[in-house]
Amino acid sequence: MKKSKLIINYPMLKWAKSLFPLCRSLTGKGTQQTLRFFKNINKEFKILKFKSGTKVFDWEIPLEWNIRDAYIQHESKKKFAQFKKCNLHVIGYSQPINKKMNRETLLKNIYTQKNQPNAIPYVTSYYKKRWGFCMSEKQKKSLPKGNYKVFIDSDLKRGFLEIMHAKITGESKKEIFFSSYVCHPSMANNELSGPVLLNAIMKYIKDTYPKRKFSYRFVLLPETIGSIAYISKFKSELKKRIICGFNLTCVGDERAYTMIETPYRNTLADRALYAALKDKKKFTKYSFLERGSDERQYCSPNIELPVCTFLKSRSYPEYHTNLDNFDVVTRKGLEQSLDVFKSIIDTFETGLYPKSTVLGEPNLGKRGLYPTISQKGTQRREIKKRMNLIAYSNGKNDLFKISNLTNISPRELCKEYMLLKSRKVLR
Amino acid sequence: MKKSKLIINYPMLKWAKSLFPLCRSLTGKGTQQTLRFFKNINKEFKILKFKSGTKVFDWEIPLEWNIRDAYIQHESKKKFAQFKKCNLHVIGYSQPINKKMNRETLLKNIYTQKNQPNAIPYVTSYYKKRWGFCMSEKQKKSLPKGNYKVFIDSDLKRGFLEIMHAKITGESKKEIFFSSYVCHPSMANNELSGPVLLNAIMKYIKDTYPKRKFSYRFVLLPETIGSIAYISKFKSELKKRIICGFNLTCVGDERAYTMIETPYRNTLADRALYAALKDKKKFTKYSFLERGSDERQYCSPNIELPVCTFLKSRSYPEYHTNLDNFDVVTRKGLEQSLDVFKSIIDTFETGLYPKSTVLGEPNLGKRGLYPTISQKGTQRREIKKRMNLIAYSNGKNDLFKISNLTNISPRELCKEYMLLKSRKVLR
Amino acid sequence: MKKSKLIINYPMLKWAKSLFPLCRSLTGKGTQQTLRFFKNINKEFKILKFKSGTKVFDWEIPLEWNIRDAYIQHESKKKFAQFKKCNLHVIGYSQPINKKMNRETLLKNIYTQKNQPNAIPYVTSYYKKRWGFCMSEKQKKSLPKGNYKVFIDSDLKRGFLEIMHAKITGESKKEIFFSSYVCHPSMANNELSGPVLLNAIMKYIKDTYPKRKFSYRFVLLPETIGSIAYISKFKSELKKRIICGFNLTCVGDERAYTMIETPYRNTLADRALYAALKDKKKFTKYSFLERGSDERQYCSPNIELPVCTFLKSRSYPEYHTNLDNFDVVTRKGLEQSLDVFKSIIDTFETGLYPKSTVLGEPNLGKRGLYPTISQKGTQRREIKKRMNLIAYSNGKNDLFKISNLTNISPRELCKEYMLLKSRKVLR
Repeated sequence: MKKSKLIINYPMLKWAKSLFPLCRSLTGKGTQQTLRFFKNINKEFKILKFKSGTKVFDWEIPLEWNIRDAYIQHESKKKFAQFKKCNLHVIGYSQPINKKMNRETLLKNIYTQKNQPNAIPYVTSYYKKRWGFCMSEKQKKSLPKGNYKVFIDSDLKRGFLEIMHAKITGESKKEIFFSSYVCHPSMANNELSGPVLLNAIMKYIKDTYPKRKFSYRFVLLPETIGSIAYISKFKSELKKRIICGFNLTCVGDERAYTMIETPYRNTLADRALYAALKDKKKFTKYSFLERGSDERQYCSPNIELPVCTFLKSRSYPEYHTNLDNFDVVTRKGLEQSLDVFKSIIDTFETGLYPKSTVLGEPNLGKRGLYPTISQKGTQRREIKKRMNLIAYSNGKNDLFKISNLTNISPRELCKEYMLLKSRKVLR
Repeated sequence: MKKSKLIINYPMLKWAKSLFPLCRSLTGKGTQQTLRFFKNINKEFKILKFKSGTKVFDWEIPLEWNIRDAYIQHESKKKFAQFKKCNLHVIGYSQPINKKMNRETLLKNIYTQKNQPNAIPYVTSYYKKRWGFCMSEKQKKSLPKGNYKVFIDSDLKRGFLEIMHAKITGESKKEIFFSSYVCHPSMANNELSGPVLLNAIMKYIKDTYPKRKFSYRFVLLPETIGSIAYISKFKSELKKRIICGFNLTCVGDERAYTMIETPYRNTLADRALYAALKDKKKFTKYSFLERGSDERQYCSPNIELPVCTFLKSRSYPEYHTNLDNFDVVTRKGLEQSLDVFKSIIDTFETGLYPKSTVLGEPNLGKRGLYPTISQKGTQRREIKKRMNLIAYSNGKNDLFKISNLTNISPRELCKEYMLLKSRKVLR
Repeated sequence: MKKSKLIINYPMLKWAKSLFPLCRSLTGKGTQQTLRFFKNINKEFKILKFKSGTKVFDWEIPLEWNIRDAYIQHESKKKFAQFKKCNLHVIGYSQPINKKMNRETLLKNIYTQKNQPNAIPYVTSYYKKRWGFCMSEKQKKSLPKGNYKVFIDSDLKRGFLEIMHAKITGESKKEIFFSSYVCHPSMANNELSGPVLLNAIMKYIKDTYPKRKFSYRFVLLPETIGSIAYISKFKSELKKRIICGFNLTCVGDERAYTMIETPYRNTLADRALYAALKDKKKFTKYSFLERGSDERQYCSPNIELPVCTFLKSRSYPEYHTNLDNFDVVTRKGLEQSLDVFKSIIDTFETGLYPKSTVLGEPNLGKRGLYPTISQKGTQRREIKKRMNLIAYSNGKNDLFKISNLTNISPRELCKEYMLLKSRKVLR
């Protein structure tokens, strides 16, 4: 951990707001533009293209979907569910249509969220050909009697699915891995918060650690099919190098801190994320049974990478509706999340396996690190922390394990470790 | 697990009622007839004979005990404690006697259960020569003053201790083991319920799985001395083959479900029985410290077979008295127990170690096993169970472990596993 | 465990009272006399001398400190803080001084315990040159206005730090280790109780087990620098031989029982001390994070000896003040502590790894160790304990583990083990 000369603020919220209007999906222009936006921020990113129809494990790369416009028009010419007003109005991967129909037929293809009558739900149908509109229950009820024209100007053609990845190398080839996804249309927390956090983490590492102990890998991809495609291409490399990984999703609100454990709860990622979060006020740890995002792929049988998922709040009411906007995601929320990973990265870069340079307790008094006078009740808490770090620094316990054993935060441990390293007590 | 074309009912209660009147003990005609009754139901059984005086580990096969009649007769000719009315009236392995004595002398050889004044207790003295009668406390108190004739027409002669075992072979030589005992006189739950359940399990396996993945071994024997004799003869074979075993006792009532763990709680039997019982309403798990039956031998030091004991209720008030009758044991109670083992056997035969055929999550949508449209709040619980089974199907976790990890019952897991196997997602 | 022909009482309290007046410190005459006092009780002790200035791991042996007299004298000739009345009045390792000064200057070198206004605190400054007096807050406040003469007749010269150790050999070279410290001036519980207990333990072993299964090692040393010096000299031997060790401190009061675990809680010492203490009414187990004494050195990284610390009450109010006297330490308190170690030693000497001589349960009835008649409700608790000991006697479980698994005290287990060994059921 180095003392940064200046606190650098990364404009995560600004990035997210810039990208918000784009219509992202598994494929298509919105996703492509999103990737290029981030590539502009972190030049190390490289784009990987997977051709429609390519087999990736049990799956096949889908057709490329693009959409230009869509709406429902009443015979009175009044338009409803206009794509240009909110891209959630059209179900993801909707087929094109341009057809007149009566209200009854139309209604069968309209999706609403009944328990949230004012919200437009986010609905997709990637692998079965459908067309459909999403509206709030209230909007649906207000559709006037009569005939309608249904118009979706989309196409599904052979093209490409795009993934972007970057590696920032360090002294060790062992990698810390970050993944997030870029397949969601205009929703802020799920999912622009993950990609912007990932890019800020990347910049933080480069800014703070121009020379690094560890290597870092970053991927931005469409959820599920993207991570499957990525793993299928890099499996043996990922298995060999990744020692700790994090999937980032819903990381922009201020409401809580959440982690999802790996299937057997026994990896460095489990220890690291738990160490960084355990003292947060609203912290919930879920088992892998409650997984939901790309950890499903990274931790699947016989892949079994050490990847935990990090979220702020989980199952928030605005999730997967047009209400997931910048009332949910805030600058503070994003910075809280960045701070979690700063503390984790600082720990890796400070040194993962502290080891005492001496046998027995070191003589800290002669180094000015211990009181030279002994009287009961005078030992400060910080001295106790110092001694506890040393007591577990046998070169085998990683700092996160020591954090969990001693109930000292990774940040405090790093600070102590740096001090003790500078005094040649630890290495 | 195969869908049985027809539900077969095994007349467990009828079998138990037929056998109830016989006077069973470690040896003797009652036990011999009991074994032959079951051999008639499951022809695979073979009888093993151990001659009186044979050394078996630290023990010696006892003399064969037979009894024809017994009673106490008051000088008024009135008879009490008549063996022909209830064979619990005579202590097990009682020596013959035909002697007059006064009431006081007689009373010294009468056993009662003071805390259950209406119950005739079950008492044995296998290894020390005694004679004695058992009566209810109430009966004892009503014995009139005067002299008595005490008559027990029994004999203890060199003969045989009999054990019966059967093997039903499958594709693998690895065995699932079942044991119960046939040494108790006219008591229903302890112990006719165990032997009749064991025979029904055996028939169920043959009827349902004419071709089997695993082999199965069944033994019926007198408690303690029988299992010691059996282990002494087959130790190396049992150690090599048994991967999971169950001792069955007191399995006929409807009151509760109980298991007794192995000494270190770490065997397939512990996982299997816990998986099958964990969702039962009245379920108690006892540690090996609370053992009581032949698991004492199967799990003894340096034998250490993976054998748990299964019971319905434990320490029920009628235990070891003449009140242990068909008010305690019911058809429903026996069938509940059979159902537990059906689910365990079905799990073994469905496949113990499920393994995903693909890397990453399988594409279930294209197989019609996953919704093709995605909207929040619409995923069904069964889909989540399906995904959780797949998530732990790495070919190393046994299905019982997966059941305990995921909180899905073995039965549900088997159903899902069969479906996913038929769709080539698991093997 | 042998039945001692006579109960021997060791005059621990008398020893402590004899030694109480001496002014002990890391070095110097008080400590030297203390060691020789104990060498007189246990002749096996050998004194090791470490010259001032010698490097021991990260430390250096300090100069030898001796003090003859000290006081503060008011211009009225009235004396305060007289060393001859209480040796806590001078801070440990105080430099000599003979100087006049005003009250204000004096007060800067006076130490009090503000939260205990009647107590003289125990203060040391081993590694930084200081002079100073300790008084009760009340005494300090009563110092009259005016000028003072400050007088400390001490010297700090090249000399020796002394340690005393002893080995009592047994059949096995594996050692049980005991350590306590002799560097505290006139305080009873902390620390005369530890050294006198250690000497009583040593006598107990020799008196009770003239022939021993195990070897025993005892050390008396000044805290921290002493144990570091000792380990630095004997590290490889200690690592090779010690299988279980105990650091003894504050063992003389009647208030509670306390243990401090090793860093990973997984040693024979953890199991042994827990087994011996778990049934005590006021028992507290602290993790290594709460360590305080020489276990800090014995368990330090890459030393990692299996050493727990035993205390009676911890953090008692009189700690490190002149109130730590024979109101705190009592004969009963010391004997309670001795009793703990008697039960541990008896367990080692009875046999650490009981093993059943037979396969299956032994036939205890024929040995008179099991009831020959079986009736429900008649089995005694002691029979159950007997069977539980046998059930875990596989030659791999140590007796302390069996104690913790079965909830039988080490003492009861030893009694049973001896009985079963005499009947050839266990070996």
